[in-house]
Amino acid sequence: MIVLYTDFGIDDPYVGQMKAALLQHGRQDVPIVDLLHRVPDFDPRAGAHLLAALQTRFDPGSVFLAVVDPGVGGDRQAVVLEADGKFYVGPDNGLLAVVAARAQTFRSWRINWRPVELSVSFHGRDLFAPIAARIAAGEWPAAALAECGSLDHAMSADDLAEVIYIDHYGNALTGMRAVNVPQDTPLAVGAVRIPPARVFAEVPTGQAFWYENSVGLVEIAVNRGNAASVLGLAVGSLVKRAT
Amino acid sequence: MIVLYTDFGIDDPYVGQMKAALLQHGRQDVPIVDLLHRVPDFDPRAGAHLLAALQTRFDPGSVFLAVVDPGVGGDRQAVVLEADGKFYVGPDNGLLAVVAARAQTFRSWRINWRPVELSVSFHGRDLFAPIAARIAAGEWPAAALAECGSLDHAMSADDLAEVIYIDHYGNALTGMRAVNVPQDTPLAVGAVRIPPARVFAEVPTGQAFWYENSVGLVEIAVNRGNAASVLGLAVGSLVKRAT
Amino acid sequence: MIVLYTDFGIDDPYVGQMKAALLQHGRQDVPIVDLLHRVPDFDPRAGAHLLAALQTRFDPGSVFLAVVDPGVGGDRQAVVLEADGKFYVGPDNGLLAVVAARAQTFRSWRINWRPVELSVSFHGRDLFAPIAARIAAGEWPAAALAECGSLDHAMSADDLAEVIYIDHYGNALTGMRAVNVPQDTPLAVGAVRIPPARVFAEVPTGQAFWYENSVGLVEIAVNRGNAASVLGLAVGSLVKRAT
Repeated sequence: MIVLYTDFGIDDPYVGQMKAALLQHGRQDVPIVDLLHRVPDFDPRAGAHLLAALQTRFDPGSVFLAVVDPGVGGDRQAVVLEADGKFYVGPDNGLLAVVAARAQTFRSWRINWRPVELSVSFHGRDLFAPIAARIAAGEWPAAALAECGSLDHAMSADDLAEVIYIDHYGNALTGMRAVNVPQDTPLAVGAVRIPPARVFAEVPTGQAFWYENSVGLVEIAVNRGNAASVLGLAVGSLVKRAT
Repeated sequence: MIVLYTDFGIDDPYVGQMKAALLQHGRQDVPIVDLLHRVPDFDPRAGAHLLAALQTRFDPGSVFLAVVDPGVGGDRQAVVLEADGKFYVGPDNGLLAVVAARAQTFRSWRINWRPVELSVSFHGRDLFAPIAARIAAGEWPAAALAECGSLDHAMSADDLAEVIYIDHYGNALTGMRAVNVPQDTPLAVGAVRIPPARVFAEVPTGQAFWYENSVGLVEIAVNRGNAASVLGLAVGSLVKRAT
Repeated sequence: MIVLYTDFGIDDPYVGQMKAALLQHGRQDVPIVDLLHRVPDFDPRAGAHLLAALQTRFDPGSVFLAVVDPGVGGDRQAVVLEADGKFYVGPDNGLLAVVAARAQTFRSWRINWRPVELSVSFHGRDLFAPIAARIAAGEWPAAALAECGSLDHAMSADDLAEVIYIDHYGNALTGMRAVNVPQDTPLAVGAVRIPPARVFAEVPTGQAFWYENSVGLVEIAVNRGNAASVLGLAVGSLVKRAT
């Protein structure tokens, strides 16, 4: 399975071009899943924490094509990561760094191959997709890769006590793993206290709460309301334990 | 064919996670079609009428994975419906009730099976997708199901004289089936009279009209304009026959 | 490969219905790629130039299902085009005219077949999809087609010195092919001078520039900014050489 994780948006022709490249360079019977194309723009840090959480639900052997690449055409490296049996193809700009930092088993390679036609602005289509397609097809592109001991852009394995994503309901996902927060602890955003709850259905309509979401992250929500609007949350908003 | 019908939106990672679950639990050669991921939030009634209209164009054997589920984690049942040879998997909260009420042949089952890892907030991925995947793969999950005579949340088979969906052109779909409205009848929204027309191309630019849309519903439109903006329509706006 | 190119949007149930029709009328193992569903509404001219640029990256044999069809239900013809070994199915309203004008080899056919159930407003699903599905499955629908020497709605092969698309980053794609503009030429939008650059990473943050994008078009961008907002660009904005 090839899993797409980008900031390309879903309105534009970029995802389609990348999928066509995957089909042209790989096997047409490998499923392609659009996981997320709205990773916060220009923000590999939030994207790195969100990817680390989302990947936990995918089976070993999955190939993540992860492209948030504001430095495309500059000097950042292109890399392949194998972390706990899953593969990641993308830029070495931090986007893969939390997955790497938390992995129990880890290898990484620089992509030294360059296609004959390489646009300066769309390595997702021209460089990363052909490599991901071959890995997903079971053909390891050894000649294209040079193993390296670590990523250029490393990050800590620690949680990030910030909002990292706001979904279309207005729920605010944080970079805090719920397993690291006692279940009965109230949190706070600014001066607003956010009590815990197990599930939407047990909270009165309109009330803010936090809960462990379906990928294990602390998520701030308002039952049948828009938490981001009500609480003034944005990607980067700091989350603390209430005092 | 598995047909997805949700309010998950298309910006967020929820559809992708559900598709990955379908692939992990089913056959990878069963096509998955995204029918709609913007069913009006928290509104199973509009969604029920829209689903009843949209499903008419699908072949028997299609499996609809239909999830608008604000009560997830509460006490609503999870059900499978077979209606006129098509299958529906989702919550028993009204979303499937118009399909059920209009079906000529009808059976229903409660899903008693629970997966080992069941998130409290994402039954689409953890509970409904595995069941839908197995049905679509031709493996009836008998051990997971208990037949029940009816749905908990029943609705009338009657049309709904309200706007149930506004598309990105601004066209307003109603819950009225055109076959139940004489073709030359003007309708009204508030004080505004809406004459009938057969097709956009026969109406002057900027003029409001209603017509039988491609799934048989009365739809209010403005030729080369945005009917919802021009007429102030929203989901729930009442539609009457003009007097 | 079937490539979808429409103005249906991605929020609404129209793309899904068209895909279901493709699957019902064709082979389920032919991949379907969503290239773009946000072609500027009601504007076959911009859409024609964008399609001509995007198609260059696809392999011969690809089948484009291209539907921007404000005149559906009127008297425009439905056509199939073969241009340089690729196929195009859609309305004869200009949308395919730039591809046709630039093709080295070219044939065209009118679609005379009509399905038993033909909605007046959704030929994408009822008329174009079945034809595209059969072509992509390798079954040429000879009985449905009548060869014609040319399209009714012809356009010039020349570039269009206008903005033809604005992406979600705010980058403005123009109808000018970069190969026709000297690389060191500054351009202008209104009174604003737009210098050239090779790539985002070599331009200071916040500065406007133009570059050859990944499909060979002149594109106006602002490094880590929104060019359309900063420069007040919209589809149709005129682009000139700076004096």
